[in-house]
Amino acid sequence: MRDQSKIEPKTLGRRIIEGDRLALARGLTRVENRTPEGRELLDFLFHQTGSAVRIGLTGPPGSGKSTLVSWLARKFRERGHQVGILAIDPTSPFTGGAILGDRIRMGDLAGDAGVFIRSMATRGHQGGLSATTYEASEVLEAAGFDRIIIETVGVGQSELEIASAADTTLVILVPESGDAIQVMKAGVMEIGDIFVVNKYDRQGGDHLLKEIHAILDLSPPDRHDFWKPMVLSTTASMGTGVDELMDAIQAHTESREFDETEREKIRRQKIRARMRLLLSGRLLDEAWSQILEVRLNEVLDRVVERSISPYAWIDGMVAEISRRGWQE
Amino acid sequence: MRDQSKIEPKTLGRRIIEGDRLALARGLTRVENRTPEGRELLDFLFHQTGSAVRIGLTGPPGSGKSTLVSWLARKFRERGHQVGILAIDPTSPFTGGAILGDRIRMGDLAGDAGVFIRSMATRGHQGGLSATTYEASEVLEAAGFDRIIIETVGVGQSELEIASAADTTLVILVPESGDAIQVMKAGVMEIGDIFVVNKYDRQGGDHLLKEIHAILDLSPPDRHDFWKPMVLSTTASMGTGVDELMDAIQAHTESREFDETEREKIRRQKIRARMRLLLSGRLLDEAWSQILEVRLNEVLDRVVERSISPYAWIDGMVAEISRRGWQE
Repeated sequence: MRDQSKIEPKTLGRRIIEGDRLALARGLTRVENRTPEGRELLDFLFHQTGSAVRIGLTGPPGSGKSTLVSWLARKFRERGHQVGILAIDPTSPFTGGAILGDRIRMGDLAGDAGVFIRSMATRGHQGGLSATTYEASEVLEAAGFDRIIIETVGVGQSELEIASAADTTLVILVPESGDAIQVMKAGVMEIGDIFVVNKYDRQGGDHLLKEIHAILDLSPPDRHDFWKPMVLSTTASMGTGVDELMDAIQAHTESREFDETEREKIRRQKIRARMRLLLSGRLLDEAWSQILEVRLNEVLDRVVERSISPYAWIDGMVAEISRRGWQE
Repeated sequence: MRDQSKIEPKTLGRRIIEGDRLALARGLTRVENRTPEGRELLDFLFHQTGSAVRIGLTGPPGSGKSTLVSWLARKFRERGHQVGILAIDPTSPFTGGAILGDRIRMGDLAGDAGVFIRSMATRGHQGGLSATTYEASEVLEAAGFDRIIIETVGVGQSELEIASAADTTLVILVPESGDAIQVMKAGVMEIGDIFVVNKYDRQGGDHLLKEIHAILDLSPPDRHDFWKPMVLSTTASMGTGVDELMDAIQAHTESREFDETEREKIRRQKIRARMRLLLSGRLLDEAWSQILEVRLNEVLDRVVERSISPYAWIDGMVAEISRRGWQE
């Protein structure tokens, strides 16, 4: 086993492209840790990317996302794809959140060289999460994975992030999430390409399905020029409805290939959104490590004893950085 | 009715302190919009703050947070407190997320001058959410509200944010949220001062209660020097268990007053966390509006056509800002 820790980015990149799994793991770590070497690596791999299909799954805890992910991975494998899985859901069995059972169900995937599973640690609230996730997906793509599944727990901000990273976004809901519709109204509605009522066999499944349809019928048509969101039902624990879901994902992928103008527009929006996230994260990381942490430590006592207001200090700090950055 | 739109911050601040509700609403809007006048206002009001008790409620959609908030507000009123409510939960009836029913139940609170309810819009992913929430709570405090209830939907990042803003954090769970324990393991565990099993009368209530106790018994003791998290059961729709919850909140408030060293340590941590959020948000807002938006627009075409990698460009941009900020 070669020591990859001191390998320079281009060499590591070449090994990743050749299919070296150890190099891939190492590269992902560098990217996740947002090191300068990680960025060089991404820069090197960038020209190998641009064609993989990214499928995002979001939904509340307990909606069975991980079981669906396993099914999708198996089905993609049957169709000859190489499958990368990025789990950024802290409750996912892929990331180690499950207590028992789930991890065992994933067992058959773990033994398949055409499947690569990576847990992503959730980071602070500096917008770094999805940026790193997308970067990781580019590394996977360069390593030959042409279907990348991103699983994230969804209520709130992470949804928008997954929508910016994924080509096809699945919103998973279950009958027992009583306020599903409220949640949907609060933003999920906007991002779902395919809505999945999982655990459909439970009480309320049919009712939820109808509610989703009703809300979609009310939504403004301008978003749906080339794709009308689909609503499907599954019982992932039994595999019921999974083939139909695969067909829907395929149909969504093809719909984008169909309309060149629309596809370019979407691509542009996504690239912009990702660059915003990346740049914001980098800027904060640098500013905090280079100057802000130290300066905050210096002023903290005075704020705690209320002799200076945090607002005045922050204004001054922002003004200073705007004038001269943070280098000596 | 006086026009408050052009009032300068100190005048507005004085009116807020005097109890002018229209000025209060105006001030909150300024703060929420993160205007320079809003920051001047906060700076002016800062010395009126520091003694209100902030109670945060977090939990999944459908856990009955809003009904509990209504009860807490009523009980605090009975005990002579002025109650401010900040709802940053997009599914809350306070913010308009509920379809029907809930808003009617809130009716009696709306008619009480000792209660002020404010919905906070959720913002983008630049860390602005909780910063603004805490700032809003300072405005409420300056206006005389000594008990401030912050309601937020909880799965993921918002929980850490509420914990940094609140003095006492309630985590609300319900029997039917099947993966409650997984969620708890994923971070909620760390932030709850009081765990509430709401809708306790439903099937599985007692089981959930025991599970929470079991997990708490396993948690490292160092966090609980002066407070062992409590676990209570309520059926908020009937008002059952609400008095016990009030007693627990009171006990938690008093426990902090008891141990001066611990209280100072916690205060310091919270102030630091809030300043981090505030400063990060401000920095990004300024940098994007002053330079980054324009520069990103200039480069976007070349990234879309893949003639330049986003990573190289971002590196250059960060280096430039680190050297000279963003002023002319």
